[in-house]
Amino acid sequence: MDNDKLKEILDSVRNKSMAVEEAIRTLKHLPYENISFARVDHHRNLRQGVPEVIFASGKTQEQVVKISRLMYKKNRRFLITKATKKIYNSLGIKKAVFHPASGIISIGEEKKKRGNVLVLTAGTSDIPVAEEAAVTASFLGSKVNNVYDVGVAGLHRLMDNKKHIEESRVIVVVAGMEGALPSVVGGLTDKPIIAVPASTGYGTSLGGLTALFAMLNSCVPGIAVVNIDNGFGAGCLAHKINTLQ
Amino acid sequence: MDNDKLKEILDSVRNKSMAVEEAIRTLKHLPYENISFARVDHHRNLRQGVPEVIFASGKTQEQVVKISRLMYKKNRRFLITKATKKIYNSLGIKKAVFHPASGIISIGEEKKKRGNVLVLTAGTSDIPVAEEAAVTASFLGSKVNNVYDVGVAGLHRLMDNKKHIEESRVIVVVAGMEGALPSVVGGLTDKPIIAVPASTGYGTSLGGLTALFAMLNSCVPGIAVVNIDNGFGAGCLAHKINTLQ
Amino acid sequence: MDNDKLKEILDSVRNKSMAVEEAIRTLKHLPYENISFARVDHHRNLRQGVPEVIFASGKTQEQVVKISRLMYKKNRRFLITKATKKIYNSLGIKKAVFHPASGIISIGEEKKKRGNVLVLTAGTSDIPVAEEAAVTASFLGSKVNNVYDVGVAGLHRLMDNKKHIEESRVIVVVAGMEGALPSVVGGLTDKPIIAVPASTGYGTSLGGLTALFAMLNSCVPGIAVVNIDNGFGAGCLAHKINTLQ
Amino acid sequence: MDNDKLKEILDSVRNKSMAVEEAIRTLKHLPYENISFARVDHHRNLRQGVPEVIFASGKTQEQVVKISRLMYKKNRRFLITKATKKIYNSLGIKKAVFHPASGIISIGEEKKKRGNVLVLTAGTSDIPVAEEAAVTASFLGSKVNNVYDVGVAGLHRLMDNKKHIEESRVIVVVAGMEGALPSVVGGLTDKPIIAVPASTGYGTSLGGLTALFAMLNSCVPGIAVVNIDNGFGAGCLAHKINTLQ
Amino acid sequence: MDNDKLKEILDSVRNKSMAVEEAIRTLKHLPYENISFARVDHHRNLRQGVPEVIFASGKTQEQVVKISRLMYKKNRRFLITKATKKIYNSLGIKKAVFHPASGIISIGEEKKKRGNVLVLTAGTSDIPVAEEAAVTASFLGSKVNNVYDVGVAGLHRLMDNKKHIEESRVIVVVAGMEGALPSVVGGLTDKPIIAVPASTGYGTSLGGLTALFAMLNSCVPGIAVVNIDNGFGAGCLAHKINTLQ
Amino acid sequence: MDNDKLKEILDSVRNKSMAVEEAIRTLKHLPYENISFARVDHHRNLRQGVPEVIFASGKTQEQVVKISRLMYKKNRRFLITKATKKIYNSLGIKKAVFHPASGIISIGEEKKKRGNVLVLTAGTSDIPVAEEAAVTASFLGSKVNNVYDVGVAGLHRLMDNKKHIEESRVIVVVAGMEGALPSVVGGLTDKPIIAVPASTGYGTSLGGLTALFAMLNSCVPGIAVVNIDNGFGAGCLAHKINTLQ
Amino acid sequence: MDNDKLKEILDSVRNKSMAVEEAIRTLKHLPYENISFARVDHHRNLRQGVPEVIFASGKTQEQVVKISRLMYKKNRRFLITKATKKIYNSLGIKKAVFHPASGIISIGEEKKKRGNVLVLTAGTSDIPVAEEAAVTASFLGSKVNNVYDVGVAGLHRLMDNKKHIEESRVIVVVAGMEGALPSVVGGLTDKPIIAVPASTGYGTSLGGLTALFAMLNSCVPGIAVVNIDNGFGAGCLAHKINTLQ
Amino acid sequence: MDNDKLKEILDSVRNKSMAVEEAIRTLKHLPYENISFARVDHHRNLRQGVPEVIFASGKTQEQVVKISRLMYKKNRRFLITKATKKIYNSLGIKKAVFHPASGIISIGEEKKKRGNVLVLTAGTSDIPVAEEAAVTASFLGSKVNNVYDVGVAGLHRLMDNKKHIEESRVIVVVAGMEGALPSVVGGLTDKPIIAVPASTGYGTSLGGLTALFAMLNSCVPGIAVVNIDNGFGAGCLAHKINTLQ
Repeated sequence: MDNDKLKEILDSVRNKSMAVEEAIRTLKHLPYENISFARVDHHRNLRQGVPEVIFASGKTQEQVVKISRLMYKKNRRFLITKATKKIYNSLGIKKAVFHPASGIISIGEEKKKRGNVLVLTAGTSDIPVAEEAAVTASFLGSKVNNVYDVGVAGLHRLMDNKKHIEESRVIVVVAGMEGALPSVVGGLTDKPIIAVPASTGYGTSLGGLTALFAMLNSCVPGIAVVNIDNGFGAGCLAHKINTLQ
Repeated sequence: MDNDKLKEILDSVRNKSMAVEEAIRTLKHLPYENISFARVDHHRNLRQGVPEVIFASGKTQEQVVKISRLMYKKNRRFLITKATKKIYNSLGIKKAVFHPASGIISIGEEKKKRGNVLVLTAGTSDIPVAEEAAVTASFLGSKVNNVYDVGVAGLHRLMDNKKHIEESRVIVVVAGMEGALPSVVGGLTDKPIIAVPASTGYGTSLGGLTALFAMLNSCVPGIAVVNIDNGFGAGCLAHKINTLQ
Repeated sequence: MDNDKLKEILDSVRNKSMAVEEAIRTLKHLPYENISFARVDHHRNLRQGVPEVIFASGKTQEQVVKISRLMYKKNRRFLITKATKKIYNSLGIKKAVFHPASGIISIGEEKKKRGNVLVLTAGTSDIPVAEEAAVTASFLGSKVNNVYDVGVAGLHRLMDNKKHIEESRVIVVVAGMEGALPSVVGGLTDKPIIAVPASTGYGTSLGGLTALFAMLNSCVPGIAVVNIDNGFGAGCLAHKINTLQ
Repeated sequence: MDNDKLKEILDSVRNKSMAVEEAIRTLKHLPYENISFARVDHHRNLRQGVPEVIFASGKTQEQVVKISRLMYKKNRRFLITKATKKIYNSLGIKKAVFHPASGIISIGEEKKKRGNVLVLTAGTSDIPVAEEAAVTASFLGSKVNNVYDVGVAGLHRLMDNKKHIEESRVIVVVAGMEGALPSVVGGLTDKPIIAVPASTGYGTSLGGLTALFAMLNSCVPGIAVVNIDNGFGAGCLAHKINTLQ
Repeated sequence: MDNDKLKEILDSVRNKSMAVEEAIRTLKHLPYENISFARVDHHRNLRQGVPEVIFASGKTQEQVVKISRLMYKKNRRFLITKATKKIYNSLGIKKAVFHPASGIISIGEEKKKRGNVLVLTAGTSDIPVAEEAAVTASFLGSKVNNVYDVGVAGLHRLMDNKKHIEESRVIVVVAGMEGALPSVVGGLTDKPIIAVPASTGYGTSLGGLTALFAMLNSCVPGIAVVNIDNGFGAGCLAHKINTLQ
Repeated sequence: MDNDKLKEILDSVRNKSMAVEEAIRTLKHLPYENISFARVDHHRNLRQGVPEVIFASGKTQEQVVKISRLMYKKNRRFLITKATKKIYNSLGIKKAVFHPASGIISIGEEKKKRGNVLVLTAGTSDIPVAEEAAVTASFLGSKVNNVYDVGVAGLHRLMDNKKHIEESRVIVVVAGMEGALPSVVGGLTDKPIIAVPASTGYGTSLGGLTALFAMLNSCVPGIAVVNIDNGFGAGCLAHKINTLQ
Repeated sequence: MDNDKLKEILDSVRNKSMAVEEAIRTLKHLPYENISFARVDHHRNLRQGVPEVIFASGKTQEQVVKISRLMYKKNRRFLITKATKKIYNSLGIKKAVFHPASGIISIGEEKKKRGNVLVLTAGTSDIPVAEEAAVTASFLGSKVNNVYDVGVAGLHRLMDNKKHIEESRVIVVVAGMEGALPSVVGGLTDKPIIAVPASTGYGTSLGGLTALFAMLNSCVPGIAVVNIDNGFGAGCLAHKINTLQ
Repeated sequence: MDNDKLKEILDSVRNKSMAVEEAIRTLKHLPYENISFARVDHHRNLRQGVPEVIFASGKTQEQVVKISRLMYKKNRRFLITKATKKIYNSLGIKKAVFHPASGIISIGEEKKKRGNVLVLTAGTSDIPVAEEAAVTASFLGSKVNNVYDVGVAGLHRLMDNKKHIEESRVIVVVAGMEGALPSVVGGLTDKPIIAVPASTGYGTSLGGLTALFAMLNSCVPGIAVVNIDNGFGAGCLAHKINTLQ
């Protein structure tokens, strides 16, 4: 379309039905439309990097369903995060899959999996966030393994899965409370680590802020941190790094 | 230049030395350069709205002087905020004026003053911030009056200057501590009010956060708030509103 | 009434039934009553600037209905903000209009619209706050346009509506999460911008504080900021600036 | 050594001078020493990922010099961060190089540079942090480009350097104040982005917390965030991702 | 009882059945029991100053009822604060009075009222806190007047009640949002003012912290501040000051 | 003067050189001037309640001296708080007295002392704040006693001075760290207590916020709290209560 | 099992079916498995120190039941904290005991009680936290006494139980609001004190943070502090100290 | 003295020169004096538990010296914490010893050392705090070992000193940044652990608050936490536990 518009102007210049000066004036006002379709191009690139996503929390069920159907018509693959079974039931989209552990609804064909992303959690309460990361990265085309509940109290299980660490290209570590697991894992490997603070805990866990700040202050240099409970962001980042060529 | 480039492409299309498809491809990569000079245009507009400014705090004296001389060569009018006498002395720019109360250095011709901006302070400690607002708005071309030290303890002086309130088009109110003055002024007038929290005070003034939050919670609806001690921003906003046509 | 009282005193002085000294003593005790009716005058002015408003949240339904009916009897135009359908249904005021997107109830005749206020949102979750601003400014007599969901992910749609920006006199920008949209819009125009932080987001969005602080720290100077989710205040301020003569 | 110890035990078992049961008991107490040399191995790996580093801030000059000389004797390549010219002068290490913009001292041979890391800053005040990232990644063996002062006010310069973005494998973005630059860059590319909040700004910039929180809340999913002013960590992470095979 | 114990020891000394040294040793271990009954004495004094009170919030209904009945048996006058109609209904104490506006249950005879405490609120949402103060002070024996909803928007009503201010001995001012009313009242009178921050408001009202901090930073010196929503404490303090002889 | 003006108008009405209507119109514009001289009256009252005061911190020495001399010319009694020896030396006011422990300069005749204010501190570091309270209350005309360093570690000294508690009418308690002393004193007496949090301590004392919050949460109901380190405010409040009739 | 594996390797070495070098290589990769069973050993030690525990809050009922049954099969003694009657009812474990005051479910035989732990609370609202500490320490084998509701208002009851203090080896003190009780108890004894801040209170109690910070700032040196509402942690620590030999 | 007073009263009772009733009345007023000398007794006990201490920070040099000499005259053993060489030089007390690493001055004879306290630090920047703990515990009579700089980067050194852990009775762990070391040590031992957050680090270390909160949220139950940088408190607590019988 925008291509058409451009072509129309250039054709007009070519067949001299439009003066060069007028074309300049017209084109000067185009850049934003240009950005517009540039962004479409860019969106195409983005789609290889991060998924189309609807963040369901804070929207009404009606809004989520309406936006989802519009997106589905354009035949896109996309995710709905922080969703509920209720939203899923009212979607009326056949190919939608509900992931109950993370509250994600994924829509679209499976992709071939590449690379190797490992998702770890310190405790069982961190699993919903970890699953959000795992489902997201997998949806984007990353091969994903997970090892859950390997905090200090279950460190031996982490060790039992040392092979997973060695075989991974990037590691997502979800932890609440004091958020120490990324530092411990970082002491065992030089793979890029993405730390996700979880809002588990009480009192001075401050809804995940303590884990967040602890991760940002890790004595292991070079740990990537994302927002509290942001499994989706961690999944996107893991996939970007995992598939970097 | 960019105009020339555009003309060159269009001329090439016109005289058929460049295919329409190639022109499309070329133009698609232009938008960012377009944005670039669009921003120059836009900057020209901006210059009518906000001044060129160098924020001196957090830069070395060398950096400030170097940037200032570069800007001066382009013959621009500009401000240096949060500056010191020492910076001023090492500038070596003849037309520079140092405003000691606010720590602003202004460079460039006086503009004709329009409209009417009133700057109020609750106390004498708020004057440096108020002066930053006043010098900025004046530099941009606004007529500025000020009435200082008219907090609760000197409210009668505010009343003595009621005429200034009535004659103004927009009012900047600088206050620290409990930041109540904008609410009081807002109860006396329906002019747009720009509230500037000052970092004066101690203890639970929390470096101006208490005044900021109080101003944001004013029971007088529609008060504009800017960052703590941000006289420069208040001056820009006051000038934008003052000269709105 | 107060006029009557004043007249009575002055008449008494004139016909010498009251000594000058006694009149002085009496008048000295009047100022507060003076303020009282001064405030009525002032209220009249205010009504041209900001609407009468009942903030429903934190009041019982009974209180809201009772106050509303009292105000309605005096035949005033007024708004009820943060209201619910339930409150609306129990009002029993014929001409009341319920705006479901913002939770505002407006009561009173339509005003002729002047000027041009543009309301933008970064996402769909910000719409309730934006609608509160739009309904308020419109109720006060401002012409209002809105373009919603034009955050970074939909910037091209903002560009598609560039004409709206150019035609507006003042722009309200509602954004949650990192609150970056006002800076982006501020880079495109020199119109006064009113930034409204929204409490959308989770984790370190801190209920809107992050967006608020980001807006206060915008590198675009002169952005007006109001309280988190304060669409009403933004609407009042936008109207004040929009109709400034 | 530990190898020797192990060999000694196993030889004893082999030549039956030690019972299997006793060997088990002995070996059970070994793991920590095992970890000890395991960590040495691991350290070797680490050295390929992150540099040896002495964090000078919070240590006395004497401590820094003493530790540095010890490390130098072992002939290691290492960095001293947050250092001063004064520390550099008292080091007495010939091959040490002082990087004044970042306050880093680097010791050791240059490495062959691989890949492509791009370091961006929003303003000139962010340069020290950016330089810390750049020097670190370069020291570790990454090829590094930088483009400084490309915040909103200089976005066109960013666009002028679009080629750098396209040619990079990973991008470090340093920004203070409202921390919006990572979102803007993230809208232009799908490369992994490492956001570094800088403590520049005043008032509600809260020493970098606002930029940090804004970055963690970016509407562009999958941005990696590190601690405030943590250029070193960003450099390590950038190098890890840049050289991932 | 303790008196008995003391008497017993002293009698033993008197009739020489206990050596002075032994009595000293015994008495040295008594002080804590002494404190015990000293506190009873002191409690008696206290009861003239502050009421016996059960803070219902955070206790189960059963606990509240059980403690209340125990206290009632000892025939005491006491208050139950932050209570509900439900608790009131299950009390089974005849003379109990439920004050629905404040959620206080008062038990015990009316006292003769002395002095004059004035309770003001900025808005209607502040009334529950104000009522808690008023009921408490009245229960303790203070004469109490109240004027509600006299914030900036209704200042003239405050002025209409100027006589109440002049006739009062101490003034309780309840305000949420920006908490400016105590400063305004403090500008009109030199009576002791007790400021009570209310948790009304939203966003940066921070659950009353902003009002609290603003009140602590009042430019009117010598305002007494109590905890957020602490009407009970304000009532006690007002009564103490009101009845000071 | 204002009296004169009023008289002039009323005389004009009386002698009919001014119409009643014109007088009404004139008088309607008077209230602010009325407030102005009302405030002067009020100031006179205030002076009996709180002293004229110059808060030196945050003002230049020049400003302090200049304001002081102006006030001195009007022959007023006033205080300069948070002052230094250097300011004192440059004042050039004969009757000025410097109180080194509190940094107060007092100017004006001694007043006859009434009532009885007791000032307590938990530690020796709290003495500057306590002295500010003591000097202020004494300057205003209150009799002041003090007992310093009677925190938990020196509670027996408090007990040794129990007579002072009993003889006082109001008690100021200054404490930093955990701020527990007001609760302890409040358990021993029913006198009004004014708690002053001090910024002594480190770590989680948070510059006095912990003491402040602890005092606001005292389980002894009815403790008056002022801002951190606000000895001046405590002194004013103590005097107001102490001299209440 | 791991023992078996070790034995197998050593047997292979012994019977020369495995070369010493191969054994070294194999054992070098064992340490983590070693840690694994070392942790089992260590766990055994731990079990003497802290109990196996399932933190029910933040887990689904299904997860809690499933983990509980697995643990029960291994015949372990363990606790479920922050549990509900509903979880208890669905457990289907005969020997489980529900402690309603604390929400703990304990599973396993009673242990012989040693030493003497005293648990105190300031108020009745603190009892759930105190009971969590008491049940935990008792479950681990400590003799536990408790004295509840002995805050300032009931200090005499503390004194009446002075014998309990003297006979205890370690004291747990639970307090909300201003958290002053540990300082008061610390002034009466030199026993180790474990302070538990409770989230009781409102306003500036900040969900227990104020009590926490006050306890950390106690002027009595050497008070051990645990997380807000962390009765379980306090119980573990008390038992560790109580049974230290 | 108080003994004398008691004796005098009892003698009077004995020789009947004082009536029993009068003696009761007199003794009832004694408890506070009783407490006074009870506290002296208690102080004697305390001295076995915690040292007399002067906290130098926040006091003038003169105050410290004056208090020190007074205490020295009474021939007491005591510590001065957070002191400087300058204070030490001006003390004029022969037996004073200055510990430069911690800034402690100790005065008094060496005590015989008992038990075994281990002090660990994560980094070299934590040593001043650790030394404060070590000097304090040693001064009180505890045998103290220390192992410094055993954070994640040097964990093998911790393991090399595993024997120290095993031989200790109580362990003090000082750590800044993410404060993870106590959790790691707690995974290796069941000894009581006292965690001391250090204010080392920058950005989101928040002056030690992050380490503090992380330690309070440790997944290892039963870790005792003290205030940020509070080596003195940790030393007292360690000694109390170490010498518990």
